[in-house]
Amino acid sequence: MSQVVRIALDAMGGDHGAAVVIPGAARFLEKRPDVQFLLFGDEAVVGPLLDAHPRLKAASRFVHTPVWVKMGDKPSQALRQGRRVSSMWLALDAVKKGEADVAVSAGNTGALMAMAKFCLRTMAQIDRPAIAGIWPTLKGSSIVLDVGASIGADAQHYVDLAIMGAAMASVILGQKRPTVGLLNVGVEEIKGIEEVKAAGRLLRELEIPSLSYHGFIEGDDIGKGVVDVVVTEGFTGNIALKTAEGTARQIGTILREAMNSSLSARIGYLLARSAFKTLREKMDPSSVNGGVFLGLDGIVIKSHGGADAVGFSGAIENGYQMVHNDLLERIRDALIHSHDARLAAGAMPAAAADQ
Amino acid sequence: MSQVVRIALDAMGGDHGAAVVIPGAARFLEKRPDVQFLLFGDEAVVGPLLDAHPRLKAASRFVHTPVWVKMGDKPSQALRQGRRVSSMWLALDAVKKGEADVAVSAGNTGALMAMAKFCLRTMAQIDRPAIAGIWPTLKGSSIVLDVGASIGADAQHYVDLAIMGAAMASVILGQKRPTVGLLNVGVEEIKGIEEVKAAGRLLRELEIPSLSYHGFIEGDDIGKGVVDVVVTEGFTGNIALKTAEGTARQIGTILREAMNSSLSARIGYLLARSAFKTLREKMDPSSVNGGVFLGLDGIVIKSHGGADAVGFSGAIENGYQMVHNDLLERIRDALIHSHDARLAAGAMPAAAADQ
Repeated sequence: MSQVVRIALDAMGGDHGAAVVIPGAARFLEKRPDVQFLLFGDEAVVGPLLDAHPRLKAASRFVHTPVWVKMGDKPSQALRQGRRVSSMWLALDAVKKGEADVAVSAGNTGALMAMAKFCLRTMAQIDRPAIAGIWPTLKGSSIVLDVGASIGADAQHYVDLAIMGAAMASVILGQKRPTVGLLNVGVEEIKGIEEVKAAGRLLRELEIPSLSYHGFIEGDDIGKGVVDVVVTEGFTGNIALKTAEGTARQIGTILREAMNSSLSARIGYLLARSAFKTLREKMDPSSVNGGVFLGLDGIVIKSHGGADAVGFSGAIENGYQMVHNDLLERIRDALIHSHDARLAAGAMPAAAADQ
Repeated sequence: MSQVVRIALDAMGGDHGAAVVIPGAARFLEKRPDVQFLLFGDEAVVGPLLDAHPRLKAASRFVHTPVWVKMGDKPSQALRQGRRVSSMWLALDAVKKGEADVAVSAGNTGALMAMAKFCLRTMAQIDRPAIAGIWPTLKGSSIVLDVGASIGADAQHYVDLAIMGAAMASVILGQKRPTVGLLNVGVEEIKGIEEVKAAGRLLRELEIPSLSYHGFIEGDDIGKGVVDVVVTEGFTGNIALKTAEGTARQIGTILREAMNSSLSARIGYLLARSAFKTLREKMDPSSVNGGVFLGLDGIVIKSHGGADAVGFSGAIENGYQMVHNDLLERIRDALIHSHDARLAAGAMPAAAADQ
């Protein structure tokens, strides 16, 4: 890592593209002037926006490309049409070439993951990358992974997720040895699917120094903040995340309608405004915006496609923290330790141990 | 079905046992005097409570048993110690013997399902029973299944869940042809796990007359009420349900604390009381209490273990509706139709078609 954090941005990604990315970056720069930006996008779109943010312009290098990935593009389509030329690819490639420390995009998740795998490749010892989300809880926030990169997992993949999630938690939450729970349908050892039970046994045996294994947790334990890191595979994780988002929005809608249903409720709302502000802040996805791609040979942050400038700036902040706190080194160290532990425990098959 | 609905109650089940079951039944009887109760439990506990509710006592037959299943008992333990003798078993057995039309228990889910399978057996054509929950949505409510009976599913099991869930929705929601969605990680045909994709193709092909197949839905579509019936297997369904409950509780906690944080917020809360009441009613699990066991040769309702008398009375109401609207007949009819459609479509392997 160079002293100045260098951030590559896909300036065209997301529902609003450069209209959010550029103000978001400008906003971030006000808070942290010690960064440099590498911006990739269409000059006709990005140019005028950059002119409106001269400070950002001065801290950026802009690279023109007329190609960008659309929100509805399939991953295969994005790869075919956008490889080597799209703003998304070029941002990732800047990380690969060592010209940037992190790439941030609000573009479509499937395309970004496909390109990131293709461009950056996975870390040694990691077969499948994951997407980790930051989940607001009653205690603050927790890391939940995988929220959608891969479907299904064997015991070994769950252990990899635990290690990577704990490394990210140590950055975000500042915990030395974050607690890790496996998401299951019950907390008893006998419950759940075989792979999760096997992962639980493995995590107990390995005693990985970078994390503290808590055991199984259930869906309602996530919001309580029972553990720092919630581990599950991408199918269940994605559905849990979207179900929680949907429930929060549903409650917001009901509350908004109810608060408008009578004069006294409207007055009550005005008087209790600060309370509703607290609720919004504590549950606001944009305050914790930024899925982190884990397991790749480089740091990639996925901003929510619908994020506004504040949200996008939050995604950049996440990327900044990951770079500043050496996320990749933390993961690599933890993987080496767990690899050794697995060898010592005889838990790895010979073929895998030979690698 | 006899004209009077006959309801068997496990009077000892749940966190509070008879202290909730008896007042809950009494409450229900006030609303619907056209029912008879069969109560199973310990006379020393149930007797005095029944004496305090003379109307209920007059509408009930009480059967003493000193054995009941504890909330922490494992299913195998419950079966070993409670078969033929526990209050839970006797309530189920009353349905099997035709002495009751429905059994309701707030006892532990695993034990109740194990005993129900053992005592009542599954319907012809159904391999594995499911638990269906009623989920409050912005449009009213939806049926979600399976929320925890079985883990994993092949395409055929998803179709069975769709048929059974639609039959239940036709009872609860009064829809002739309820819409059914498969829970997935994206709405495109190419997304998700193989079994879900295969189930989607099968549901499109079969054109089952008792339901309208909508396609895939995502986690945040549940709370929007996009479909009447949400189909998923028990692992994901249980985690989605508990995650949503956890999120709702989390928001409730934050809101409560925030509303108490200042004088003006407290006054605002008082003025907007009716709005909060609306929210509570719309999101209150006790108003839609009662998981329905589907696929068994008999109707079994599982009340939430922590339900109060109002909640337990809601679970009885669910059971009453299922009996009154011939749930089992609706499921059997739909299964026969879909069986014929599958034969016609050549979608069933010969061995299965021979049955």
